[in-house]
Amino acid sequence: MIQIGVIGAGSCDTELRRTAEEVGAEIAKNNAIMLCGGLGGVMEAAAFGAKKQGGTTIGILPGNSRQSANPCIDIAIVTDMGHARNVIIAQSSDALIAVGGEYGTLSEIAHSLKMGKTVVILDSKWEIEGTIKAKNSKDAVRIAIDSIKVK
Amino acid sequence: MIQIGVIGAGSCDTELRRTAEEVGAEIAKNNAIMLCGGLGGVMEAAAFGAKKQGGTTIGILPGNSRQSANPCIDIAIVTDMGHARNVIIAQSSDALIAVGGEYGTLSEIAHSLKMGKTVVILDSKWEIEGTIKAKNSKDAVRIAIDSIKVK
Amino acid sequence: MIQIGVIGAGSCDTELRRTAEEVGAEIAKNNAIMLCGGLGGVMEAAAFGAKKQGGTTIGILPGNSRQSANPCIDIAIVTDMGHARNVIIAQSSDALIAVGGEYGTLSEIAHSLKMGKTVVILDSKWEIEGTIKAKNSKDAVRIAIDSIKVK
Amino acid sequence: MIQIGVIGAGSCDTELRRTAEEVGAEIAKNNAIMLCGGLGGVMEAAAFGAKKQGGTTIGILPGNSRQSANPCIDIAIVTDMGHARNVIIAQSSDALIAVGGEYGTLSEIAHSLKMGKTVVILDSKWEIEGTIKAKNSKDAVRIAIDSIKVK
Repeated sequence: MIQIGVIGAGSCDTELRRTAEEVGAEIAKNNAIMLCGGLGGVMEAAAFGAKKQGGTTIGILPGNSRQSANPCIDIAIVTDMGHARNVIIAQSSDALIAVGGEYGTLSEIAHSLKMGKTVVILDSKWEIEGTIKAKNSKDAVRIAIDSIKVK
Repeated sequence: MIQIGVIGAGSCDTELRRTAEEVGAEIAKNNAIMLCGGLGGVMEAAAFGAKKQGGTTIGILPGNSRQSANPCIDIAIVTDMGHARNVIIAQSSDALIAVGGEYGTLSEIAHSLKMGKTVVILDSKWEIEGTIKAKNSKDAVRIAIDSIKVK
Repeated sequence: MIQIGVIGAGSCDTELRRTAEEVGAEIAKNNAIMLCGGLGGVMEAAAFGAKKQGGTTIGILPGNSRQSANPCIDIAIVTDMGHARNVIIAQSSDALIAVGGEYGTLSEIAHSLKMGKTVVILDSKWEIEGTIKAKNSKDAVRIAIDSIKVK
Repeated sequence: MIQIGVIGAGSCDTELRRTAEEVGAEIAKNNAIMLCGGLGGVMEAAAFGAKKQGGTTIGILPGNSRQSANPCIDIAIVTDMGHARNVIIAQSSDALIAVGGEYGTLSEIAHSLKMGKTVVILDSKWEIEGTIKAKNSKDAVRIAIDSIKVK
């Protein structure tokens, strides 16, 4: 099954949270697996959205314990590798969607582009050459999935 | 859900393959997720056994592509970290079962014991203090799962 | 001793090469260690500049062999972790100087800023909030070193 | 220059400490660089021995700060990767010497043997096929260095 990464900050406002939840839900509706960093904020909202639609969620955690995963994570990958887990998120995603995000998200965008992956951007301050801006959550997931089918 | 790691060599004889397949099947029957290194040999046999019982399988791959996963892997985690992926297998498993295995498996046994995890041994040449020998596949999975419930 | 990271692309034009060489030389003149990704382009030029001034050079390599280090690397750290070695470069540097650079360099800039480190920029297309632009190589190294002394 | 890894526990008794110090000193006398995990016990004693002989010492740290390095470390590589730093120690060493050691050391022995490296054992409880037992510190360093020259 297709694995779509959702990247974004560990804490976020209500609007970003709603966007991330919609993205997670759309991924599940498209029968794709939602992969993220497993913590709070955008990651938790996307996992919540995916679970509401009966989807599967993967959390790639920076710490050394499954306990740090948010409650909507089905499968917890415990890396104990801090920021290097961002690289694993990029590597394990067939395409990625950034919802907002700070420096951690920027590192994931950069790694993903370096790997030649499609990175769709929603409500993000990062204007990085090579990313694709989406109009809304549905649009973002469609672009991500279409980019994989083409390959 | 409980995540049980199955560790062993990337190529193995028919007997070890059968044992690994039984271990994978038992894990699935116990409603646990089977986690492994995602490649061939013991890893593929355990994933095959788990899928035959309708279970879920995770492969934590050393290379940089999902294509290297064996066909029985549901969820591919792409680390591109070579042997360091062994550490992630140990960290992400609630308990581990070694089926045979060479130096790579020994590294996983050592990391797991260092992390305080239960390591059950089947048909392995490694006699490492702190591991638990099982009589057969069913026994191995039971010991692994009981060790987690106790915690 | 202070460890200054120099980040930039694995291949570059003559002008960037000269800038990187000057940066490496300035680091050595300031009795700091020059740390980089150990490969060609900006990394090799910076190491060459540091060695010409009698400095010490560290290369944190993405592959699995010391042979891939450029000839000006004194100490080779072999990670076999691909892009995740970028995180180790950021973690191991007291401050960083980006000379040009593409997506890989952007990932290092992002990781470094996330870790709260000073990132000085020279001739780079990346305009990332939180970085400091330097006028020239000497200026860049002075800013980097002053940022550490203050701490 | 040759890089010899010294592996062993983070705390140890006086006898092991003396052995590790001798090993570090011998490495420096042979104009090789001493590489270790950068923390206390065997690692600190080996670094102390190497510095007394004017050698160079590298510490590959598991945590996220240079501050955790013992005072005899010249060059600190900060991985923030926990046990996965053991893999980097194995990869970055041309040959390794184990002084005593527990499960962490066993993981390093296993990774090193998997990579085809020479592992010399001193005063260790681990009896692992493929390692070479040395009579004393001088003997251990000689075996390690000779194994590299042969290659």
